Amino acid sequence: VAAARRLLRRSVRRDAGRLLVEGPSALSAALAAGRVLEVFATPEASQRHAALLDLATAGRARLSLVDDAAAAALSETVTPQGLVAVASMPTAGLVDLPAAPRLVAVLLEARDPGNAGTIIRTADAAGADAVVLAGASVDPWGGKCVRASAGSVFSLPVVDGVCLEPVLDALAARRCRVLAADGSGETLLDDEIDAGRLARPTAWLFGNEARGLPASAIGAAEAAVAVPVYGAAESLNLAAAAAVCLYASARAQRGPRQSARSATSAAKAGAAEGRQER
Amino acid sequence: VAAARRLLRRSVRRDAGRLLVEGPSALSAALAAGRVLEVFATPEASQRHAALLDLATAGRARLSLVDDAAAAALSETVTPQGLVAVASMPTAGLVDLPAAPRLVAVLLEARDPGNAGTIIRTADAAGADAVVLAGASVDPWGGKCVRASAGSVFSLPVVDGVCLEPVLDALAARRCRVLAADGSGETLLDDEIDAGRLARPTAWLFGNEARGLPASAIGAAEAAVAVPVYGAAESLNLAAAAAVCLYASARAQRGPRQSARSATSAAKAGAAEGRQER
Repeated sequence: VAAARRLLRRSVRRDAGRLLVEGPSALSAALAAGRVLEVFATPEASQRHAALLDLATAGRARLSLVDDAAAAALSETVTPQGLVAVASMPTAGLVDLPAAPRLVAVLLEARDPGNAGTIIRTADAAGADAVVLAGASVDPWGGKCVRASAGSVFSLPVVDGVCLEPVLDALAARRCRVLAADGSGETLLDDEIDAGRLARPTAWLFGNEARGLPASAIGAAEAAVAVPVYGAAESLNLAAAAAVCLYASARAQRGPRQSARSATSAAKAGAAEGRQER
Repeated sequence: VAAARRLLRRSVRRDAGRLLVEGPSALSAALAAGRVLEVFATPEASQRHAALLDLATAGRARLSLVDDAAAAALSETVTPQGLVAVASMPTAGLVDLPAAPRLVAVLLEARDPGNAGTIIRTADAAGADAVVLAGASVDPWGGKCVRASAGSVFSLPVVDGVCLEPVLDALAARRCRVLAADGSGETLLDDEIDAGRLARPTAWLFGNEARGLPASAIGAAEAAVAVPVYGAAESLNLAAAAAVCLYASARAQRGPRQSARSATSAAKAGAAEGRQER
């Protein structure tokens, strides 16, 4: 527990190539990615999440029963759930970007771990190929970001600790156009949609929560694109703006039905189609 | 300061019909709504935000210079900005919903003040006519929600403390169709868009962060609508899903350009049109 507890610090995580994963949702994603090394659970949590722990021990993960105090010591939340795992850190670099990415989200100087995690989760849901955290962005392997991502940090390549220039080079080499999300951008998102340009392979640049993107990043993009504001609000929250932009791309690229995964809807659509054929 | 400090408690806010507003962005929105009664500022903050304080005192607001300790006592943030105001609480009820609303967001049992504030901000930006917090939802007048809304709680009617049934009655009386946002809904958001149905006056129901909407609420809606998930993520964060749904409605209702407000883009579009005419 003492060794695991040190992983609460960013520098120790870096050195060890390991991170802490708290709660069933993130643990489940880490297990699916085969990254769980050890699970700490209180007796109560081990009963409540028995199926998840069976899955962990069926892999190579070690299970350690701990008391509430030890579980709380490993937890960063106000109400610890008694379930914390040590996972190996996925180490994706720019070379690991797919050769022909369709949709990429790039965060530049994003400082809020909740926002970063939410955007990673949204990018995963929108079918993005990768998320890149460039410049002095927050550590995606910190507890708050991992939890906000609901485990999506394990589901798609997350590249961090890179400068913007090599990111832009890598995207250019992969023939991916770059759009800067910018509340005061000249192009409205709807113009991009109407012109059919969002169907092309696209990387979205998102900036700092307070300052947005620097002029240099906006200048390097093909266009500065604003989500339209119809009401009195000055702007959108970063993660909300990212959700609107990423889903605009997903819709343009995927069309309404193709490969969308929604368990219930897929099953029911299948049943409905079956009925129509009969 | 002592009296203002008590407004950190929900029950006191209710009784007094007043709330605390922290930071320049929310204060600016409260001033624009004519709701600021008193401003507490440290000497440093009063210099940094001189224009805002001039605006406040030009209204009927009283200005009190306080020391850092007093400002911190009124603050709920880790890094107080030295600027906190007492504002009168807007009291919108269901009767205050416009007679023919175009877009309404209804939160049912939403418990996270950051999510609720972000959704109020997004609804405002998307041009919604009102936000309703139904059932045991979080208090929209608490500090975290007001800050997450970036002041949008003052910009559009926010109705809270109501049960779902009268909300549905009020929406039906105003000929507003009701859609339930539901990750396992039968209808994909893209189907609604493609069928052109989102152009109609629409109220979106959003549920609890963990449990979603109860079956009764889904049953009362015209359709249960899922934002498609293309990747490995189980679902979207509540505020991200709301952003995608509300902006899908805004786009269907407003079209690409009509009355979208983006200072820079509007100015530049005007200049471009001017050039074309010459």
